[in-house]
Amino acid sequence: MRLRNVKNAKSIIEECEYVVKWSSETLKGNWESIFGNSNPIHLEIGMGKGKFIHEMAKNNPNINFIGVEKYESVLVRAVEKVNKDPLPNLRLLCVDALNLPDIFNHEIDCIYLNFSDPWPKTRHAKRRLTSPIFLDIYENIFVDEIMGGEKRIIQKTDNLILFASSLKNLNNYGYTFDDVSLDLASTEIPNVETEYETKFKKQGIKINYLNASKK
Amino acid sequence: MRLRNVKNAKSIIEECEYVVKWSSETLKGNWESIFGNSNPIHLEIGMGKGKFIHEMAKNNPNINFIGVEKYESVLVRAVEKVNKDPLPNLRLLCVDALNLPDIFNHEIDCIYLNFSDPWPKTRHAKRRLTSPIFLDIYENIFVDEIMGGEKRIIQKTDNLILFASSLKNLNNYGYTFDDVSLDLASTEIPNVETEYETKFKKQGIKINYLNASKK
Repeated sequence: MRLRNVKNAKSIIEECEYVVKWSSETLKGNWESIFGNSNPIHLEIGMGKGKFIHEMAKNNPNINFIGVEKYESVLVRAVEKVNKDPLPNLRLLCVDALNLPDIFNHEIDCIYLNFSDPWPKTRHAKRRLTSPIFLDIYENIFVDEIMGGEKRIIQKTDNLILFASSLKNLNNYGYTFDDVSLDLASTEIPNVETEYETKFKKQGIKINYLNASKK
Repeated sequence: MRLRNVKNAKSIIEECEYVVKWSSETLKGNWESIFGNSNPIHLEIGMGKGKFIHEMAKNNPNINFIGVEKYESVLVRAVEKVNKDPLPNLRLLCVDALNLPDIFNHEIDCIYLNFSDPWPKTRHAKRRLTSPIFLDIYENIFVDEIMGGEKRIIQKTDNLILFASSLKNLNNYGYTFDDVSLDLASTEIPNVETEYETKFKKQGIKINYLNASKK
């Protein structure tokens, strides 16, 4: 998601205490102390304007949430939301998903992928957030199974090419499908809508949903 | 699929030499001698009017095909097709899928499930041809992995509830997804259309496709 430039985006982001300024020395392995507790940490990669992660954090005070967004021009929208209604269990992070292993050391329990860039052309398939390249990256940030940890990816998308490739890749990587739907709105699966999703639903576009875990 | 009664359906079926008259003593374990060769055997469960299996058999003379259909009123349409254009590698069988283990002893390499009854209500989920009950049944008729056999299920359906439940069930049962598409027509996957499929495509309905194997 790209948005028009917001005036002073850089300084708005820099001044927000809920945006974590990253360097691998201060963050990696230190998330318990950043949050001040050892609650599970859930990550949304590509949080967009942040409605989903903010609402999730509000509804689940015993889980820590981190919203990751690559583009400052988008992140600033989430920052505005968090500035209006800050939550102790929510942090934001401006980073490319490829760099996640520099920031987390087996500290993440769950990853949300909501309406990620589908990269529909076959020659761009590697860039999809459920390509084997990214599944390898997630192995480095997911909690260790030896510690009794559970790795979980929850994906929502309207894009049929992205979803079909996620199904194949996660299956081939050893994930167990706990829930699959090709029309989320018709199910009773609890759901917090993203901005995109609300729009799509109004247009009658069906949302695909996958909840998959790995031991 | 149910069709209006065809006059003399019973006798048309009985007189066709390509319809195998089943009894567990004569068939189970004897399919090599029925076909007169040891080529792999592919099964379509719920073949409807038989266009798919007839075309597959014609295109693949080195594979033996068996079309299974529960209803005589439907089977008779396939019989008419086979009477017009008989093929040495195609047989038809009038039987309920629940009885397949009485008919095959680890002799099947591949099962096609084309536009099966979706049984969309949750309380009927067990009746879907990819429910764990049926996956257990298929284990009894699929070739043995010890013999180097490959078990393969290839499903096509327009129904989102059936397809989502197939994805979950086959994943949970240990199948590897070799190919998944939520819009088969947009891919380059080789495809023989069924009667249903041709109709659906004209209406712009997307076809879901899963090709899954198990060791």
